[in-house]
Amino acid sequence: MANLDSIFHGLADPTRRAVIAQLARGPAAVSELAAPHRMALPSFLKHLKVLEAGGWIESGKAGRIRTCRLRPEAAKAAEDWLGRQRSLWEARLDRLDSFLETLNDIGETDDA
Amino acid sequence: MANLDSIFHGLADPTRRAVIAQLARGPAAVSELAAPHRMALPSFLKHLKVLEAGGWIESGKAGRIRTCRLRPEAAKAAEDWLGRQRSLWEARLDRLDSFLETLNDIGETDDA
Repeated sequence: MANLDSIFHGLADPTRRAVIAQLARGPAAVSELAAPHRMALPSFLKHLKVLEAGGWIESGKAGRIRTCRLRPEAAKAAEDWLGRQRSLWEARLDRLDSFLETLNDIGETDDA
Repeated sequence: MANLDSIFHGLADPTRRAVIAQLARGPAAVSELAAPHRMALPSFLKHLKVLEAGGWIESGKAGRIRTCRLRPEAAKAAEDWLGRQRSLWEARLDRLDSFLETLNDIGETDDA
């Protein structure tokens, strides 16, 4: 399993995010993945290597065609991490709400 | 609003993720954020700058104390992007399921 550093580094570039979005629709040959990008093939292949290091994609060769597919584990790890932070954040807002309600109740009692 | 490149770049480092996790529990002074990290302050401040550029944090100064707080918009943008890819991926798996069921139905008809 790739670590979170390389998983998130994989997402920090528009070409790499476009490759992930394309592969989410199904496996594709490297040439199909490269086609939408105005980029020399060696530069494009570097992006694929970053995605492979981040655990986002895997590839296999049949004859002269290399085909890539998405590995959903990387997305799951990224979403899990973000979800954990959101839980902490929302728990904090709930505590803040309770605190403000308590202040409000005290205020109303004072007014009565 | 920061772009997705800088939002995800913000997450591609363990110190920066630790800062986000700490701030998800509530605002904190720069000194409190720096304390858990074995790092010279200038290096730590660079990480805060990356998080600020990624729209993850904002800070304000009261006297000599600079306090940072989390901005949930960056997390939302990151989760939204990941969620969109997951929808594409799951829609594809559903289509694949239907296709396999169709194949299965044809197989059963042939056997009868």
